[in-house]
Amino acid sequence: MKIPRAISALIDSFQRLPGIGPKSAQRLTYYLLHVPQIELDNFSEAVKNLKKNTTLCTKCRNVGEEDPCLICSDMSRDISTILVVEQPLDVLAFEKTGKYNGLYHVLHGAINPLENIGPDEIYTGDLIERVKKDKGVKEIIIATNPTMEGEATSMYITKRLKSLSQISNLRVTRLGMGIPTGADLEYADEVTLFQALQGRRDI
Amino acid sequence: MKIPRAISALIDSFQRLPGIGPKSAQRLTYYLLHVPQIELDNFSEAVKNLKKNTTLCTKCRNVGEEDPCLICSDMSRDISTILVVEQPLDVLAFEKTGKYNGLYHVLHGAINPLENIGPDEIYTGDLIERVKKDKGVKEIIIATNPTMEGEATSMYITKRLKSLSQISNLRVTRLGMGIPTGADLEYADEVTLFQALQGRRDI
Repeated sequence: MKIPRAISALIDSFQRLPGIGPKSAQRLTYYLLHVPQIELDNFSEAVKNLKKNTTLCTKCRNVGEEDPCLICSDMSRDISTILVVEQPLDVLAFEKTGKYNGLYHVLHGAINPLENIGPDEIYTGDLIERVKKDKGVKEIIIATNPTMEGEATSMYITKRLKSLSQISNLRVTRLGMGIPTGADLEYADEVTLFQALQGRRDI
Repeated sequence: MKIPRAISALIDSFQRLPGIGPKSAQRLTYYLLHVPQIELDNFSEAVKNLKKNTTLCTKCRNVGEEDPCLICSDMSRDISTILVVEQPLDVLAFEKTGKYNGLYHVLHGAINPLENIGPDEIYTGDLIERVKKDKGVKEIIIATNPTMEGEATSMYITKRLKSLSQISNLRVTRLGMGIPTGADLEYADEVTLFQALQGRRDI
């Protein structure tokens, strides 16, 4: 049976999204058939204008409406600390805590040799240049994901920065590892428990 | 932190879709930031034109590009049988089997008193009218979902049709119930096993 072209086109588009398989794509598409046209128009506009109305901050590479972004141009923030994350969403996560007042640097990925992503495919070079130029930076907090790729990225950046720090007295730190709040010790894996032990603090 | 409006607009749109929560909506949106503009344009067009380029078949209420739809206007199909389903996707599922050559009727839902969906909110009336008018129909196969709502819909339609069948000698059947192919008997629930027993056949 031939599916109407308008429908199969949207199924195709949905299927290209991560985590959406053929069945979900079908379900979403047929769901939208029952939605008022005005909502479809809004959705359509939002997709079309997503990149047109956003830009990458030349300083921190975060996604924003302005360049430099709102965080980089915020005078009340502590410019001596840069938190390095893989994705713009990670910035959001830290901002939600309300406990971090420094700046960010967004790498837009992690080193992943299996997928041919080396240090030059992500914004590591920009970070090094930024630290070199800006003498006010005192600490780099590396907050890449605790995955193989995130660790490799962390190690690479640390190595590059350490060679700089002989000049500039720079502190390079990694996010604390251990058991997350609300977790059940019984179900924690060995690596996490080991890291929680290593990272123990006086109370 | 303020999220750029272009981004929060798309997150909002994604979040309105069934089965997509705030986190998935964020992930999908930030994923699309890395996608070429031409793909965004295609996606945007597909959403906008979804309903403009499709129509409901006045005969079977299936979604198609033409009215009557390709199935209703296909002369090679057996017009004496109508298979009644809840959703257009169910038509697709039956068409994929390649084993059904009759016509369809799409209800676009099931009777669900808890959500204020009665027989008049879905296309049951159309089905009755269609059967009344078209004397060639010999069998109605009810293929609503084996859920509370689907069963209620099936019972309602059966009752309405039976009162007609005194005139027109109409056969009303329900899809066979039992164990699905490839399933493990060990994990089948009691109702399914009971229905499999009831529906046993000579071999």
